[in-house]
Amino acid sequence: MLQKYPSVLLENAVNEFAKLPGIGRKTALRLALHSLKRTVDEVDTFGNAIIHLRKGINYCKVCHNICDTEICNICADPSRDESLVCVVENIKEVMAIENTGQFRGLYHVLGGIISPMDGIGPSDLQIESLVQRTQSGRVKEIVLALSTTMEGDTTNFYLYRKLNDSKVKISIIARGISIGDEIEYTDEITLGRSIVNRVNFSDTLKL
Amino acid sequence: MLQKYPSVLLENAVNEFAKLPGIGRKTALRLALHSLKRTVDEVDTFGNAIIHLRKGINYCKVCHNICDTEICNICADPSRDESLVCVVENIKEVMAIENTGQFRGLYHVLGGIISPMDGIGPSDLQIESLVQRTQSGRVKEIVLALSTTMEGDTTNFYLYRKLNDSKVKISIIARGISIGDEIEYTDEITLGRSIVNRVNFSDTLKL
Repeated sequence: MLQKYPSVLLENAVNEFAKLPGIGRKTALRLALHSLKRTVDEVDTFGNAIIHLRKGINYCKVCHNICDTEICNICADPSRDESLVCVVENIKEVMAIENTGQFRGLYHVLGGIISPMDGIGPSDLQIESLVQRTQSGRVKEIVLALSTTMEGDTTNFYLYRKLNDSKVKISIIARGISIGDEIEYTDEITLGRSIVNRVNFSDTLKL
Repeated sequence: MLQKYPSVLLENAVNEFAKLPGIGRKTALRLALHSLKRTVDEVDTFGNAIIHLRKGINYCKVCHNICDTEICNICADPSRDESLVCVVENIKEVMAIENTGQFRGLYHVLGGIISPMDGIGPSDLQIESLVQRTQSGRVKEIVLALSTTMEGDTTNFYLYRKLNDSKVKISIIARGISIGDEIEYTDEITLGRSIVNRVNFSDTLKL
């Protein structure tokens, strides 16, 4: 149904809010009307924060993580282990892994995964710069931390073949039963892998 | 958990998105990262649409509906019945009633309802201007179309007492069983009212 808006300004704002992912026209209207209840300064700060983010954003020259400087805080941190590089799809995964506090190496953000269905090939991703990083001689191990989807597996395999010539060790994050999951409800493939890839119990006690 | 963002610009954008109603920090991050995938122009248009809405918005001098001109399109439409004024809480209700296509009169937007719990009293609402409109002599009927909540009922009663001295007829929208509702699941109060306020069956056939 074509909804009539009493104002063109309101209609424009609703249209723009509705372009955001997961926001329908009803929520967009609610957000636009909410903006009317805020002060001019608050709305100005809101709009400009988004505009400045897009205009001012920088990508780290080493790992392609987003940052405000040439080199991101993680790459610039001398206490981190530069011989260990974790390959991730996007910035969100960097944040998720950083939140665990379990990884002290550096990252490499691919900017996506190989997905022929979406027209994303290896050349669209930061793969060439990853190969160059491994050729510097300072990287000893690459940890692949991509999604366990068909596209993730394809990308893992592509990277494995691309990096296999170098002397760098290539590892992959463990797949298994999530903490808190019950074995009887775990799918067969995950359960099967977790048995094949079983680890020494005493090793797990160190974590 | 305090989440660390790799960029201050990103953090600001996430904070601003998270101030919107119904948007948590996770969704805010998703929206901020989505903005990075759009072109600078697209993001500029988005931010400015919201800013321009807030800065440029006008309220109709007659009915307080939002509009781009001094008098809104509805009040300025000579084909509408100016003797019939529908009192609503907000702009959303104007849009909802307009969408039914069943009302050809004018509106009066109160800008809220009386709610002592939220500190909203009669003086915070556009009640004085409603009284003035009824004194002009052109208004013959006021239709109260507020929510069926305690606050809505309080406001209805307040308006009734305030307007009762004038010769204007005061009516209220029908409360009853929603179209499509089953009688056995309808709450007692609604069902009771719908019996007390029963209407001539042949009248309903005209709609």
